[in-house]
Amino acid sequence: MRKILVVLIVVLTTQIAFSQRYKDNWESIDSRPIPQWFEDVKFGIFIHWGLYAVPAWAPANADIGVYAKYSEWYWSRINDNSKAGKLFREYHNKMYGEDFKYQDFAPMFKAQHWDPEQWAELFKRAGAKYVVLTSKHHEGYTLWPSEQSWNWNSVDVGPHRDICGDLTTAVKDAGLHMGFYYSLYEWYNPLYHNNIEKYVDDHMIPQMKDLVTSYEPDILWTDGEWDHPSEKWKSTEFLAWLYNDSPVKNSICINDRWGKETRSKHGGYYTTEYDLVHEQEGVGEVKRAWEECRGIGTSFGYNQMETPDNYMTSEALIHLLINKVASGGNLLLDVGPTADGRIPAIQQQRLYDIGEWLQINGEAIYETRKWEDAKENKTDNVYFTRKGKDLYVHCTKYPDSPVEISGIKKASNVTLLGYSGKINYKKSGKKIKITAPHLSPNTNPSEYAWVFKIENAL
Amino acid sequence: MRKILVVLIVVLTTQIAFSQRYKDNWESIDSRPIPQWFEDVKFGIFIHWGLYAVPAWAPANADIGVYAKYSEWYWSRINDNSKAGKLFREYHNKMYGEDFKYQDFAPMFKAQHWDPEQWAELFKRAGAKYVVLTSKHHEGYTLWPSEQSWNWNSVDVGPHRDICGDLTTAVKDAGLHMGFYYSLYEWYNPLYHNNIEKYVDDHMIPQMKDLVTSYEPDILWTDGEWDHPSEKWKSTEFLAWLYNDSPVKNSICINDRWGKETRSKHGGYYTTEYDLVHEQEGVGEVKRAWEECRGIGTSFGYNQMETPDNYMTSEALIHLLINKVASGGNLLLDVGPTADGRIPAIQQQRLYDIGEWLQINGEAIYETRKWEDAKENKTDNVYFTRKGKDLYVHCTKYPDSPVEISGIKKASNVTLLGYSGKINYKKSGKKIKITAPHLSPNTNPSEYAWVFKIENAL
Amino acid sequence: MRKILVVLIVVLTTQIAFSQRYKDNWESIDSRPIPQWFEDVKFGIFIHWGLYAVPAWAPANADIGVYAKYSEWYWSRINDNSKAGKLFREYHNKMYGEDFKYQDFAPMFKAQHWDPEQWAELFKRAGAKYVVLTSKHHEGYTLWPSEQSWNWNSVDVGPHRDICGDLTTAVKDAGLHMGFYYSLYEWYNPLYHNNIEKYVDDHMIPQMKDLVTSYEPDILWTDGEWDHPSEKWKSTEFLAWLYNDSPVKNSICINDRWGKETRSKHGGYYTTEYDLVHEQEGVGEVKRAWEECRGIGTSFGYNQMETPDNYMTSEALIHLLINKVASGGNLLLDVGPTADGRIPAIQQQRLYDIGEWLQINGEAIYETRKWEDAKENKTDNVYFTRKGKDLYVHCTKYPDSPVEISGIKKASNVTLLGYSGKINYKKSGKKIKITAPHLSPNTNPSEYAWVFKIENAL
Amino acid sequence: MRKILVVLIVVLTTQIAFSQRYKDNWESIDSRPIPQWFEDVKFGIFIHWGLYAVPAWAPANADIGVYAKYSEWYWSRINDNSKAGKLFREYHNKMYGEDFKYQDFAPMFKAQHWDPEQWAELFKRAGAKYVVLTSKHHEGYTLWPSEQSWNWNSVDVGPHRDICGDLTTAVKDAGLHMGFYYSLYEWYNPLYHNNIEKYVDDHMIPQMKDLVTSYEPDILWTDGEWDHPSEKWKSTEFLAWLYNDSPVKNSICINDRWGKETRSKHGGYYTTEYDLVHEQEGVGEVKRAWEECRGIGTSFGYNQMETPDNYMTSEALIHLLINKVASGGNLLLDVGPTADGRIPAIQQQRLYDIGEWLQINGEAIYETRKWEDAKENKTDNVYFTRKGKDLYVHCTKYPDSPVEISGIKKASNVTLLGYSGKINYKKSGKKIKITAPHLSPNTNPSEYAWVFKIENAL
Repeated sequence: MRKILVVLIVVLTTQIAFSQRYKDNWESIDSRPIPQWFEDVKFGIFIHWGLYAVPAWAPANADIGVYAKYSEWYWSRINDNSKAGKLFREYHNKMYGEDFKYQDFAPMFKAQHWDPEQWAELFKRAGAKYVVLTSKHHEGYTLWPSEQSWNWNSVDVGPHRDICGDLTTAVKDAGLHMGFYYSLYEWYNPLYHNNIEKYVDDHMIPQMKDLVTSYEPDILWTDGEWDHPSEKWKSTEFLAWLYNDSPVKNSICINDRWGKETRSKHGGYYTTEYDLVHEQEGVGEVKRAWEECRGIGTSFGYNQMETPDNYMTSEALIHLLINKVASGGNLLLDVGPTADGRIPAIQQQRLYDIGEWLQINGEAIYETRKWEDAKENKTDNVYFTRKGKDLYVHCTKYPDSPVEISGIKKASNVTLLGYSGKINYKKSGKKIKITAPHLSPNTNPSEYAWVFKIENAL
Repeated sequence: MRKILVVLIVVLTTQIAFSQRYKDNWESIDSRPIPQWFEDVKFGIFIHWGLYAVPAWAPANADIGVYAKYSEWYWSRINDNSKAGKLFREYHNKMYGEDFKYQDFAPMFKAQHWDPEQWAELFKRAGAKYVVLTSKHHEGYTLWPSEQSWNWNSVDVGPHRDICGDLTTAVKDAGLHMGFYYSLYEWYNPLYHNNIEKYVDDHMIPQMKDLVTSYEPDILWTDGEWDHPSEKWKSTEFLAWLYNDSPVKNSICINDRWGKETRSKHGGYYTTEYDLVHEQEGVGEVKRAWEECRGIGTSFGYNQMETPDNYMTSEALIHLLINKVASGGNLLLDVGPTADGRIPAIQQQRLYDIGEWLQINGEAIYETRKWEDAKENKTDNVYFTRKGKDLYVHCTKYPDSPVEISGIKKASNVTLLGYSGKINYKKSGKKIKITAPHLSPNTNPSEYAWVFKIENAL
Repeated sequence: MRKILVVLIVVLTTQIAFSQRYKDNWESIDSRPIPQWFEDVKFGIFIHWGLYAVPAWAPANADIGVYAKYSEWYWSRINDNSKAGKLFREYHNKMYGEDFKYQDFAPMFKAQHWDPEQWAELFKRAGAKYVVLTSKHHEGYTLWPSEQSWNWNSVDVGPHRDICGDLTTAVKDAGLHMGFYYSLYEWYNPLYHNNIEKYVDDHMIPQMKDLVTSYEPDILWTDGEWDHPSEKWKSTEFLAWLYNDSPVKNSICINDRWGKETRSKHGGYYTTEYDLVHEQEGVGEVKRAWEECRGIGTSFGYNQMETPDNYMTSEALIHLLINKVASGGNLLLDVGPTADGRIPAIQQQRLYDIGEWLQINGEAIYETRKWEDAKENKTDNVYFTRKGKDLYVHCTKYPDSPVEISGIKKASNVTLLGYSGKINYKKSGKKIKITAPHLSPNTNPSEYAWVFKIENAL
Repeated sequence: MRKILVVLIVVLTTQIAFSQRYKDNWESIDSRPIPQWFEDVKFGIFIHWGLYAVPAWAPANADIGVYAKYSEWYWSRINDNSKAGKLFREYHNKMYGEDFKYQDFAPMFKAQHWDPEQWAELFKRAGAKYVVLTSKHHEGYTLWPSEQSWNWNSVDVGPHRDICGDLTTAVKDAGLHMGFYYSLYEWYNPLYHNNIEKYVDDHMIPQMKDLVTSYEPDILWTDGEWDHPSEKWKSTEFLAWLYNDSPVKNSICINDRWGKETRSKHGGYYTTEYDLVHEQEGVGEVKRAWEECRGIGTSFGYNQMETPDNYMTSEALIHLLINKVASGGNLLLDVGPTADGRIPAIQQQRLYDIGEWLQINGEAIYETRKWEDAKENKTDNVYFTRKGKDLYVHCTKYPDSPVEISGIKKASNVTLLGYSGKINYKKSGKKIKITAPHLSPNTNPSEYAWVFKIENAL
């Protein structure tokens, strides 16, 4: 009986929260709360798929910095004179010849093995709760039949399929949230360079509205905003429409990439990328919801030259997820499919492993929040999340000596997730001391990280 | 001294003729005289080159009517359900498979053997005085780097060359006039279908202006106008700009395809196509300059399946030229280059043969005008042109009996072009009777047609 | 009644002529008469078709000598260091890249438009009576499914068709004789280089026998014999089989390319090539049947870069035919089809023109023989052929003055082929003086060459 | 000093062992001992690479039996009518079209990313001691420039590289043994079908001799022997040459696939394949050295459609290795590279994991032998190997209760490999009882399997 009541109240609150009309300025836009679902889901899958999946190359092992190893920047790199650029160009000329242009890759992007249901199934098995697909990256090529991008989209050229549409259906059918990455700028679109106003009015905003109204995504994840302030992009104007009048006005989440001045300042949730944080004091202090994104390896788009040494191990990925969630963030982990539509098996394997860990330990991740007293309990290899009154203690290394935690009101029960044995602990004042049990390889509930749950601790 | 004076007068006259400002209505636009050069040149080369050069196919021998054999309509045909359409689709599926889309042809249009100087040289050798290239056909793919057609033009995709630019340079350097064909509509451009006003304002008119200002053509040869009246296309508005303010305002010629109601009514010179005439009583009566266009064979774009039986013979082509010029028109004879940039040798051979005939007989073609009394002298196989006071009598069959012509004032001399022997004739009243000389195969000055010149006849 | 008798006698004679058994030596092999049909047919079509049709290139206009312009030598040329070789290599690297090997062309040889019936129809229309196809050129790739050339033949790789078989059927159905060119050596076959005996026994002779027994050709036209004497090739051994035991022992014709010492010495009929004659005093003196072969242009295999300037004109081709036939030879005129299976329209046009001339003048070509007294009547532009007692006088330039011929016994009638008018002539002693009639362009029976027939002259 | 002495003795013994001459019969051939190195190495890498790497497909999840999922059988499968064959054909037609032949894959096998040193490094890291590459599979295409396979080998067509040669160099440089798989029969070679004797004499035996003399392999691993008895293949004749006169007569190892009657009967070591054993009572009883081969997944050649679910886990692979070695065999684990020359990252990952386990536990694998008393100690999840007097007890599940083993003479020391702590055990009579220590996740020396070493046990 009580449960139903609560739900009703939530629904009413939500209705109220969204009944106002947002105005065309950051103050108003920023005042909209992030829809709760976003902070509950914690783990999402990012997908970088486009024409760069054809060359699928970056110098993964070169000494060129983290951001120069993105294979999805191939087109730009073969035209720049940086150290990285020279490596890309050298490779390009050797493989395809000097006269081969990036556009010539388009018909080679065939997606002939693509099975969106299989992808959705995989993401679900990984324990992810949402998916963000590059509807358009900086190359300008769209994965849906955009009227503004005639003959430069996946229906007209290449796969001859509506990738945004088909994936949305599959992902939603699997019970996950679906979102789109969208690049505001386009490297080589002459309209962008010659007439930015017209580009924004006639190309960019119509495309975003088309995406929103056609596929009703839960996330709009913009990028490529750094050339211009948000005013030039007419971002608040668009967002006012999105929040007031679009079909997803109540559910949509957005990020913070809406103009050169907006990261970690305005928009919806904040974003970091391979731990790069813009314009803020430190992720730990952020009051907003936020999300880290990165590839499993060194690139977002597929880089066929990567060996397992270039990929994070399953252990490192699980530690990363714990770390980000404990800091109040989400993890949007990227996969880079091949041009024929498969997710490389090594990436699938990593997702399986995360999923297996979440099968046991998911309750310590999903719907949790950062624990405010975590900083007082800072220890190597120990992380905290909380849910209601319960506290979860994540150990990324199995503890040899008892784990001491302060700030604990009481402890009605202490368990190790996935383990049925009794856990010894000692409560004194606001402190608790938990002794990890002897685990043989046979009784060990999970690999990589172990979670103690203290019920009614807070 | 006298020569210079004459030139000055011509210049002044030209200045005066074009000094008025044209208004945005047909009455004003139509009042502009066709620049004289156009009526002097008589023989031009049309070039249909685009992505259709890749499949290069039409059912040349099927019973489907003249206009269904154009290979440049390939994209449209594979999507229609006509008898012709079925033949195109059947061929397409067999050769490329059902999933192969027209856009997939783009990177196969490589133009790797293209030599614009060689083309210009060929056209000159053919005796042509002007060239009209399809800067954009109904497919929308442009042969120049059009900002409005990003990634759907010959610099971005396919040849990676500015075909309009390079050919303009070569043609002008060879001393010929250069012009562009431009299709107003585009079969599959979603902007065209969804927002015709925006298409006209933001796509079509900017493209035409770009062509005009970038390459300064002598002809703008529009087509694809039949969906809408000229008002919708804003034709007179554009033409007022072209006539008043463009860099080619004095020299440019245009045709009559500017709206569904304009053929043979408005614009510049009138056009016919494989003898099809729109909306007028008969070409013979036209007061305007006009031009017939057609392919050497059954198609404008290259059709690789055509045998010599599908091509007009050199004799038929020379007769056609005589016929059109005698009727006051020009002949714009089309060649269809291959996707790799060559003009098929059989087409080159036809052009050589015309050029050889014009070497001897060109004075009876270039700079001539229709003879008003021709209709009183209508006989099979005899045609007339005049230049100043001289009359040219073209015989497309060698006359066995004397040729009688009335309406002749006097005849200071009668010659057979290319033949040094004396010509017997008899003048009585306004009539003349010319007896063709005995010609052995060795003394025969030209093949296919023979021209008598009557000096001071008019 | 008489007719039937004659036929019977001929049959009996033929039977007798071929009833002996030939021995494995040149004296015996050379003693076999050339089957009469070969000397009667006069005009044949040579076809060079193979993987070289894919690059289809040679430097037609370079100053490199006649024999370096053959496109079918592409593979060898890109590997030699001659002046020509450098041009081929330069082109190859530019078009295909250094790493692209000749073998990579194989799957690009698709013959997708090939229609053997259409070819046969064309050859017939050209007036040709026999066809010789390159069953295997020096590249070693066979146009039939040769067991000895697995995965290097037209059924396994490329067109996936039995080209020799399908063309044989079509050509024979059209009533023409069918023959095969066959290269004894193969440039790059390691067996040839490492073990010539094994190559001959296990590869070459089995292939030739396979060709002969599978398709029963009328001609076996060998080439590539120059590396070794005929003994090494076991030529006489093979020919003894061919003449004694093969299914075509009575009808087959062979040429003279059976060993480095055999041209113009041994075998069947003698051959010249672009007028190159081996090892003999002069074609004029040859007692054997012989045959000139050459391309219409500068190459046997298709060279896509040739313009009409590189092709012989129809006039020159007809003069060539007259010249060769008057000298007792045949003309084997080569066409070079495209990789997709079409005979270039310009080549078709030339064949049409020859066929048109032969429609009128064929009786002066087919079944004629060289006139022994021709050399006493040597005049520019006049050639002779004879058939029975009739003499044909071919004028390759229309005679302005009377044509005088000595050695004429009588002249029961003199006509101009294709012309119904009376011909004036004067017979005195063994001389005759023929006056060419006045021909207007309308009454001229043929272009390019005119033939007077003197009945019962010999 | 002592060390050197020992080496000398070994060398002398070896010399003696191989000094006899083997005769052309099985009795003699079988009498040759397997070179000791083979029984010491235990773990090798099999590589299936050929044109099948281009389609790289098999129906991994269909219900068609283990042996029908081999992607390297693609060519054969698309031509058979089995249930599997239909699936292959259906896929082929959909992806490539009915007219696309298997040979058309050849130029698509480019190996453009192939780095043999990187492969060798990977195999070494995996702990493998030998490598066996498909020099030629049933398709007949050779990975070296075989004179007998002109234009059907990796130098002439496709990669344009000597793959056998380059890999041999890299593998030997990395200190590993190198061997070749070689298929006796060829599915579609007409010589094989039309003249088996000639095929054996002129094609197969010359190819094997060429392989042996050119690359001096340590293993010749034949297959495709089932059509004919060894007499037809002239196997003993060849092996007599190999053992008596070849450059590798002392070191070479061969397997048992030399004729339809020879598996598990004659030749060198015996082979099993996905646990299939031919013609013998059971592997456990075999006196000969033997070897199990299988893919990591369901196929030898690469199957791009396999997900991690189709691959054995690292745990299962390590258990497999233990199982086979404990039974006296070797494990030849197969990788299937891509057509561009990479080993799929998922396969690399598996090899890393095996290598990591072998780093700790390798001493219980390499140079060990089967323990004769193992069968008296048969228990689930416990396996034995011995080396000298030491016994290794492999536990594939961590033992909850003490492990009891009988047949133990004494036990001077008991350790857990990779673990420094003391191990409790109890020796009584010929029995020993070992108690596994408490291992926390932090002190656990290896994943997947644990090895106790009993020193001086035997």
